[in-house]
Amino acid sequence: MVRWQPGAFERLRSAALELFEETGYEQATVAGIAARAGVTERTFYRYFADKREVLFAGGEDLQRLMADAVAAAPHTDDAARLVAVALDALATAFPDELRAHARRRGAVVKSQPALLEREMLKLESLKATLSTALAKHGVAPVRAAVAAESAVGVFHVSFARWVADGEERSMAELQQEALEELRAVVMWV
Amino acid sequence: MVRWQPGAFERLRSAALELFEETGYEQATVAGIAARAGVTERTFYRYFADKREVLFAGGEDLQRLMADAVAAAPHTDDAARLVAVALDALATAFPDELRAHARRRGAVVKSQPALLEREMLKLESLKATLSTALAKHGVAPVRAAVAAESAVGVFHVSFARWVADGEERSMAELQQEALEELRAVVMWV
Repeated sequence: MVRWQPGAFERLRSAALELFEETGYEQATVAGIAARAGVTERTFYRYFADKREVLFAGGEDLQRLMADAVAAAPHTDDAARLVAVALDALATAFPDELRAHARRRGAVVKSQPALLEREMLKLESLKATLSTALAKHGVAPVRAAVAAESAVGVFHVSFARWVADGEERSMAELQQEALEELRAVVMWV
Repeated sequence: MVRWQPGAFERLRSAALELFEETGYEQATVAGIAARAGVTERTFYRYFADKREVLFAGGEDLQRLMADAVAAAPHTDDAARLVAVALDALATAFPDELRAHARRRGAVVKSQPALLEREMLKLESLKATLSTALAKHGVAPVRAAVAAESAVGVFHVSFARWVADGEERSMAELQQEALEELRAVVMWV
């Protein structure tokens, strides 16, 4: 019999991160994560397909958040306005109170090439999602594709800065700065 | 005793592509590729670490070509000029006479998620290489990072168009167009 366990998702995420940090990602087991969170393995598998997914749960939410925001934008084929909407939506997913968690998670992801690959695949999906969302507004394919590549590039560079040691500026600020840098380059190529 | 075999590298590449197309990538073996190319397996392994590498040999050359071109550019911290140099160098690696081969290779790569992942990793390495090359000229880190993300994005979008069925424009033309599209977006975000 499966019962709803309040907070189990969050407890499992915290427990997994702690265990990955203590024993290394490779050594950690689902049984160990579940035990630390005070739930059964079966409960773990109700939330996550495997231990890797604990680190990547939320990736689909991020895509949906961005896609929904772009879809809800006033109808326009002005790619620049839609890119701004997409970047604003991405920034809202990373408020300052998540930064400490994101730093710890990032350190685990960096420790394993396979996890880094997975992270890059998520960025590729984000590009594809954005390109599709722009195309739905009538943005022409090539413009949609390069806009998506660059917008996700701006997000990627800004996220890396956001989680860097000592950084205190918000995602929105960092993305704005990255966008200005990009503009300075692209204007004159 | 290892003898130099003129043309073995090219023969192995052609043989591998033919075999991948005929039997599917998974079914093809190094023994089969070597036999079709008229060389021993030992000769195969002198050129490639495994059958996957037959599809990705040249990736390092591409990085080196781009990095060397940027390094050889007149000293400047003008990221826009250096990005133009990098894109020109990338375009020279894909002359029209390589397009038919690139199309066939692309179809094989698309057939296997693991090969597609590998392709994306190569693009990530290209970004890192470009970012480093820009930084060596004194381009500030954030500008170098977003410039590299976007330049490789332009390359990626253009390469996908270059190998698309029926496309006849050159890589240089397609990159120029993608860059103009990017400029139109980024100017107004």
